[in-house]
Amino acid sequence: MVTLINRFTVHGDTDEFERVFATSSVFMCSQPGFASHRLVRSLRNPKVYVNVAEWQSVAQHQAAVARPGFADHMKELAALAAVDPDLYTPVLERAAADA
Amino acid sequence: MVTLINRFTVHGDTDEFERVFATSSVFMCSQPGFASHRLVRSLRNPKVYVNVAEWQSVAQHQAAVARPGFADHMKELAALAAVDPDLYTPVLERAAADA
Repeated sequence: MVTLINRFTVHGDTDEFERVFATSSVFMCSQPGFASHRLVRSLRNPKVYVNVAEWQSVAQHQAAVARPGFADHMKELAALAAVDPDLYTPVLERAAADA
Repeated sequence: MVTLINRFTVHGDTDEFERVFATSSVFMCSQPGFASHRLVRSLRNPKVYVNVAEWQSVAQHQAAVARPGFADHMKELAALAAVDPDLYTPVLERAAADA
């Protein structure tokens, strides 16, 4: 399992950003190795969004971003926001029941 | 539900950071309103960690960080890493089964 965290700082319209992001989300969901994602929005700075996505493997994520269509989605998003993606590996996880 | 995302850029020893973080994780897990958290580590820059935590409400998270003990944990972490915390609200969520 690998986690993609992508921080978006929107310089365009946030409604438009959310619309375009939703389209790219549908695209990513259909790719092999995609497990889940969540887009969240900063309470302090509503121009900042973070997408946290789970993938089965680095290789499957790399294959998804190399597929035709992904570049178009990223181009649309990059026109509306500065992006800062990175892949992460889990270190420690805990739920309330473990306390 | 509210999401805390905290990015740590470690300038000290990463093993020591993980040890101190694990102690603060036990503390946070026992606080009312804590749901779950996950600490992940960047594959590109192993000095960068991100903690993604779920809380029942902003008020409960604020109460937890105001409690005695939290400041000591943060002081220990801040001695080892630059911190960049923020609270986020969910916008869009999707799992593979929804595709």
